[in-house]
Amino acid sequence: MTTTFNAAELALPGIRELQPYQAGKPIEELERELGLSGIVKLASNENPLGVSPLVQAALNVAVKGLARYPDANGFYLKQSLAEKFAVNADQITLGNGSNDVLELLARTYVQPQHEVIFSQHAFVVYPLVTKAIGATPVAVPARDYGHDLDAMAAAVTDKTRMIFIANPNNPTGTFLSSAELEAFLQKIPNQVLVVLDEAYYEYVPAAERAPSMQWITRFPNLVVSRTFSKAYGLAGLRAGFAVSHPQVADLMNRIRQPFNMNHLALTAALTALEDEKFLAESIEVNSAGMRQLIDFCDRHGLTYIPSHGNFLTIEVGPEAGAIYQKLLEMGVIVRPVAGYELPNHLRVSIGLADENDAFCHAMEKILA
Amino acid sequence: MTTTFNAAELALPGIRELQPYQAGKPIEELERELGLSGIVKLASNENPLGVSPLVQAALNVAVKGLARYPDANGFYLKQSLAEKFAVNADQITLGNGSNDVLELLARTYVQPQHEVIFSQHAFVVYPLVTKAIGATPVAVPARDYGHDLDAMAAAVTDKTRMIFIANPNNPTGTFLSSAELEAFLQKIPNQVLVVLDEAYYEYVPAAERAPSMQWITRFPNLVVSRTFSKAYGLAGLRAGFAVSHPQVADLMNRIRQPFNMNHLALTAALTALEDEKFLAESIEVNSAGMRQLIDFCDRHGLTYIPSHGNFLTIEVGPEAGAIYQKLLEMGVIVRPVAGYELPNHLRVSIGLADENDAFCHAMEKILA
Repeated sequence: MTTTFNAAELALPGIRELQPYQAGKPIEELERELGLSGIVKLASNENPLGVSPLVQAALNVAVKGLARYPDANGFYLKQSLAEKFAVNADQITLGNGSNDVLELLARTYVQPQHEVIFSQHAFVVYPLVTKAIGATPVAVPARDYGHDLDAMAAAVTDKTRMIFIANPNNPTGTFLSSAELEAFLQKIPNQVLVVLDEAYYEYVPAAERAPSMQWITRFPNLVVSRTFSKAYGLAGLRAGFAVSHPQVADLMNRIRQPFNMNHLALTAALTALEDEKFLAESIEVNSAGMRQLIDFCDRHGLTYIPSHGNFLTIEVGPEAGAIYQKLLEMGVIVRPVAGYELPNHLRVSIGLADENDAFCHAMEKILA
Repeated sequence: MTTTFNAAELALPGIRELQPYQAGKPIEELERELGLSGIVKLASNENPLGVSPLVQAALNVAVKGLARYPDANGFYLKQSLAEKFAVNADQITLGNGSNDVLELLARTYVQPQHEVIFSQHAFVVYPLVTKAIGATPVAVPARDYGHDLDAMAAAVTDKTRMIFIANPNNPTGTFLSSAELEAFLQKIPNQVLVVLDEAYYEYVPAAERAPSMQWITRFPNLVVSRTFSKAYGLAGLRAGFAVSHPQVADLMNRIRQPFNMNHLALTAALTALEDEKFLAESIEVNSAGMRQLIDFCDRHGLTYIPSHGNFLTIEVGPEAGAIYQKLLEMGVIVRPVAGYELPNHLRVSIGLADENDAFCHAMEKILA
């Protein structure tokens, strides 16, 4: 055939305009670029303790079985999740990270004529999955860097099909109380799915956590997503899940790829759920590191957004981009958040004590 | 809210009608159901040799790094694939198994008004991804259980946007020669993407393999997909990739989930590519097992579809469903293919010699 080929013209219009997700710079990439070693990465809200020793042991056994396909139904993991969170296994959809379940939800329910509501400064995956379908993203201005639930409820129209709420929110760390969320859910009509993304749930003090999964019996349009990428320390394996009304889970399970959660992710997640000691230690290390960074900010008069996550978003002024670069050159990777309409801030993930120190020392040199 | 909630009514119409993919029964599921042990699974075209020892060693190191996110760009794996297959890294899209790249292609290019062509008896994921978008699947009747390329070319209309071709085909094992494929590509207009799914490519004798990736410079609408799930023995980790025109890859990379291929899959695939000894051994074990099953069929007067894959699809007659059940009860899992319009056949994956023997002995008892 001699006709010309225009790959973009043939594609969905929404996709042509998508900007790919900007991941945190991998350590090895910076090493390649700068010829550095001993780099500290505080850029992607990962668990600085690494992987639970129990999980490592389970994986060393499970690698032998990798030539087999994963269990397409995740039988054992769903059983364990159902027991731990007091829900039914038929309410659960497993995902290749919670990113996967967020995308599955959008693809199941959102069509090009629909609107999808989320907050300014919220996780970038919400507009990405919306645009990939060709639907209309509606970003509601934030209040004090967090979700303005009244404004979000007021933004609901006949075309609204889905609302994403991140609690705690990434990249700001802001938090909505149980009472605020419950009042919001009461205002939202049933034909609008409310997706409550609780990726940072484990870092919230137990007394402040919403009983979100239990709300689903009262609010069938509520979907709760969780991840094993943060406090459970399994970002590299991709394991997340949604809990929803069983009818919603049934539809999501029809559209998901049959082996979307891989065999080692299933194994690791199952073991991680049981390792409560590692989880508690991860939370404790996070609390200590958070105090360390806050003390540093207070000593240097730096403003930060109070955070309920495993990161602190610090206001460093209009030179944020240049400071990010200088930190890079000093071997410390943090995350610029200009893409989140926070051009004066940098998001710093909580690391181990010496990693946090490395950031503080580098930052002191830059400020001097 | 007191309004009723109908999860299905809100969902995309195509999804409501989807039937979930039926995976091969996992060994542990049969053990749960029947209280059996020592079960032989010849149901999912997996590598009976397991995982390459080099890959296992690499994974035992890589598990320590699992708390970090995967490299979103798969830098090293793409470099290695590009070198091995003499393509450019910007032509490659990595996937969570080749299932993922097939779905990404459909979501990038196919809209509800489009038609998608594939062959009768071809891989079930093609109609699944088509229906999930709400587009029209067009199944072209097979010729001798394989693709009828003339009829498929004749089925192209103004609405056709994509054609899936599996070569070798699953679940029939039929094979199209390089000359047949090339003649077909010359007939297809550029606005129709031809997706050549070569999941079983490594089992084809080298002299018969099509130079498919090199054709892309002549046929920019051609996309080739490959997997690490078969001869490379990594089904459980989910690793696949597409090679395409760079513009197509650019669009697919915008819509894919940023960490769709997990860290261990990246590590394992990179190592598996280097372990040519294991690959050669896998192919040799497959050839020997194929001869074993063919001899068995010949001895018992059973007809089979000549196969270029790592499986043999055997005609056992209208009692195929009952024979599948009897085999299960005897601890041998094969795959019924009635869902592929092959109600009289069973697909048997090639196992190790003693696994093939177990199938043959069980089958002999049933035939007697």
